[in-house]
Amino acid sequence: MRILLVGYGTMNKITARLAEEGGHEVVGVIVNGDNHSPYPTFQNIDDAQADVAIDFSHPALILRLLENEVATPLVVATTGEKEAVISKLKDKSREAPIFFSANMSYGVHVMNSLLKKALGLLEEFDLEMVERHHNKKVDAPSGTLVKLLDTALDHRRGSYPVYDRSNTNEKRSSDEIGVSAIRGGSIVGTHDVIFAKDDEVIEITHQAQSKEIFSNGALKAAAELVHRPKGFYDYNNLFEER
Amino acid sequence: MRILLVGYGTMNKITARLAEEGGHEVVGVIVNGDNHSPYPTFQNIDDAQADVAIDFSHPALILRLLENEVATPLVVATTGEKEAVISKLKDKSREAPIFFSANMSYGVHVMNSLLKKALGLLEEFDLEMVERHHNKKVDAPSGTLVKLLDTALDHRRGSYPVYDRSNTNEKRSSDEIGVSAIRGGSIVGTHDVIFAKDDEVIEITHQAQSKEIFSNGALKAAAELVHRPKGFYDYNNLFEER
Amino acid sequence: MRILLVGYGTMNKITARLAEEGGHEVVGVIVNGDNHSPYPTFQNIDDAQADVAIDFSHPALILRLLENEVATPLVVATTGEKEAVISKLKDKSREAPIFFSANMSYGVHVMNSLLKKALGLLEEFDLEMVERHHNKKVDAPSGTLVKLLDTALDHRRGSYPVYDRSNTNEKRSSDEIGVSAIRGGSIVGTHDVIFAKDDEVIEITHQAQSKEIFSNGALKAAAELVHRPKGFYDYNNLFEER
Amino acid sequence: MRILLVGYGTMNKITARLAEEGGHEVVGVIVNGDNHSPYPTFQNIDDAQADVAIDFSHPALILRLLENEVATPLVVATTGEKEAVISKLKDKSREAPIFFSANMSYGVHVMNSLLKKALGLLEEFDLEMVERHHNKKVDAPSGTLVKLLDTALDHRRGSYPVYDRSNTNEKRSSDEIGVSAIRGGSIVGTHDVIFAKDDEVIEITHQAQSKEIFSNGALKAAAELVHRPKGFYDYNNLFEER
Repeated sequence: MRILLVGYGTMNKITARLAEEGGHEVVGVIVNGDNHSPYPTFQNIDDAQADVAIDFSHPALILRLLENEVATPLVVATTGEKEAVISKLKDKSREAPIFFSANMSYGVHVMNSLLKKALGLLEEFDLEMVERHHNKKVDAPSGTLVKLLDTALDHRRGSYPVYDRSNTNEKRSSDEIGVSAIRGGSIVGTHDVIFAKDDEVIEITHQAQSKEIFSNGALKAAAELVHRPKGFYDYNNLFEER
Repeated sequence: MRILLVGYGTMNKITARLAEEGGHEVVGVIVNGDNHSPYPTFQNIDDAQADVAIDFSHPALILRLLENEVATPLVVATTGEKEAVISKLKDKSREAPIFFSANMSYGVHVMNSLLKKALGLLEEFDLEMVERHHNKKVDAPSGTLVKLLDTALDHRRGSYPVYDRSNTNEKRSSDEIGVSAIRGGSIVGTHDVIFAKDDEVIEITHQAQSKEIFSNGALKAAAELVHRPKGFYDYNNLFEER
Repeated sequence: MRILLVGYGTMNKITARLAEEGGHEVVGVIVNGDNHSPYPTFQNIDDAQADVAIDFSHPALILRLLENEVATPLVVATTGEKEAVISKLKDKSREAPIFFSANMSYGVHVMNSLLKKALGLLEEFDLEMVERHHNKKVDAPSGTLVKLLDTALDHRRGSYPVYDRSNTNEKRSSDEIGVSAIRGGSIVGTHDVIFAKDDEVIEITHQAQSKEIFSNGALKAAAELVHRPKGFYDYNNLFEER
Repeated sequence: MRILLVGYGTMNKITARLAEEGGHEVVGVIVNGDNHSPYPTFQNIDDAQADVAIDFSHPALILRLLENEVATPLVVATTGEKEAVISKLKDKSREAPIFFSANMSYGVHVMNSLLKKALGLLEEFDLEMVERHHNKKVDAPSGTLVKLLDTALDHRRGSYPVYDRSNTNEKRSSDEIGVSAIRGGSIVGTHDVIFAKDDEVIEITHQAQSKEIFSNGALKAAAELVHRPKGFYDYNNLFEER
């Protein structure tokens, strides 16, 4: 594929390297400010005549670009201002195929699918969620855990998250979904959902080892997206409907 | 429910206790030899006029009982001579609802369902399986791991299990499914399937804490089976078709 | 050994069974109220002329017994009113060998020893602690985790526990010791300490599978204590000084 | 420190980057063949007048360099021909401080120390070892697991490793040390030792997330070695005797 990069931070550089290692061509970048990349600069997404544009930037840049026409298939991984971004992307998806995911890891998507399946089969089991990340992460729980939690809250009517048990002195309610956030070292990201009932425990765990999984996910989505008609895609309808 | 126990070993005793704790009545037992239980002895399954019979015995006893007519709903957990037992049970299921599972744990069934789902989504991932059991277990890998392995071998055409890598000096083939068996202490039983690809790992784990899960599973199946028409049931069609 | 049981609740019954399975003799019990055990009743610890007394009772009973003379070696596992109990036990240890531990599991003691060793070697590593227990446990974190945490706080001057990160929006300080409590099903008890630094993680985990480990620990301590001179013992000086 | 690199493969490049990020200077390299690095070439270790030389090369290169005089402190991480290399290094350690470890990860060294401690406290526990590595690794079990296994075999007289249980039909002997090797994806390296006895399990786990831990370990050893008198050092005497 001929790929246009939106943004040129850490994730874009990894994406460029993995794209080139995979035989693709990076045809240019769109950045706010000076272009320190080895690739040509473009102003608008369609200018590059790329097969696909991959965004790892920020709401300010991508929202501005979406003011203009977009006919190029577009993979968007920006986090922040999620509702504004999604709303705008849905508008633009009448013109082009657009893929959005707040977590570009294909494995995290699979974990969410397995969680849904498990929720249907393990209704009587207590559910707890634990994530681990590096010591520089400022938010807790992680965006990915919030996504998994939303999946569970949607399924279990009346359930609610519990973030701290150190001040309580009561038995666990079956409506609780315990959430724990572990921070240390340079852990890239581990997510664990735990279903427990009388004398048995079932766990589903996803462990990321490097940020490359997000670039790999974006490239995997891009490779599929270029064969799709215009519309709004996420992991649920891009891969599962095949 | 009014329950007849077939056999009176460790698992039957646990089943009796859990049944009574759950408000059910144990109306009798069928044993080979003397009856050391506090319950009346019966010779044939239908003699007890129970709502359901739960078997944790051995092929010799259950195969003999199946020579006679059986109209009572029947949950069978006998291991050994699996093909002969299943064949006979299928015959008899024209007369009564019969449930059979080589592993009565509901959680293990769920794990197998999650494994199937994961196999469909993670085709490019390497797959490995690990089980842990107590130091008195003589067979390896466990019957449950063999079941999980069969699920994976069915799905991945051309794949094959690898039990020992200490003598090889070659890269892993993607067709391998590694199988490891850990033995120690009094571990009741843990099964772990590991999917690994570039920089991410997804694991599904089931951990049993006591043998009660098998009795609980048999009672759960029994409670459902008494509402079913005659036929042959296992975990795949007893619960999932609801 | 000829063993006197102080109390006759769940833990005492398990201790009696394991003692008898191990070839020991239970010579009697001391209880508040009626004696529902198959063993003779005694009023005071020395009355039974046992080789050792093993207590799994409560502060009211054991503190009353300690008002009288005690020459019999004594293993005490009562929880609650810890300071009052220890103070009284130290008094009495001028008359008899007395062993006390708030957690009778030998494995938990070993875990604490390994933690101490690790703390000395991993000073630059972030430290987090996680425990899992059943859904009926009302306190969090567990007493055992508090003990492990005390070990770490003693070693790391200026460190402090953090129980909830969901409301913060800051990087982790290296003085934090994260503490998470997971609750679900009938999990007997798992404790996990996690040391994380640049690109490596070291974990030490203890998993209890049944309450028998506490009885086993008490019996192991008793077998050692009967060979010791009067004095106050715990896991640190009873086994490590051999 | 002013650092000379011996070899200029993947590990040397990572070491150079981490050294420079840590404020050190890379003064040159010694390579077989052409020098594709940005650093000057040297022929012999002392020629560079470095504070310390760090080797991640191969036996052919390091053994040749050791033919000449070496007064520069030297950190050696070459794997292969271990006995010949160690023998030669011990010779040269009469002239200079020399550090050797087959696994440069400080965390793996700590794990080995914790294992030794645990072996002394858990003599009655069954012991099993499991490692996980990427699917391109040709040897199994890993060199690090072999080192951990040697530690255990030294401590448990009469014990022996068991690599495959799929063909046996016997109870585990307490003299067995089970060894399992899991291969998949790009897993950098995880090592797990499992101690199991009646109803409790204690595990010690080390997980490497990137190859940087080996460079970090070499730099940490180098920083200590430059303050030491001539002699032969490894992780056991370089850090623990402080």
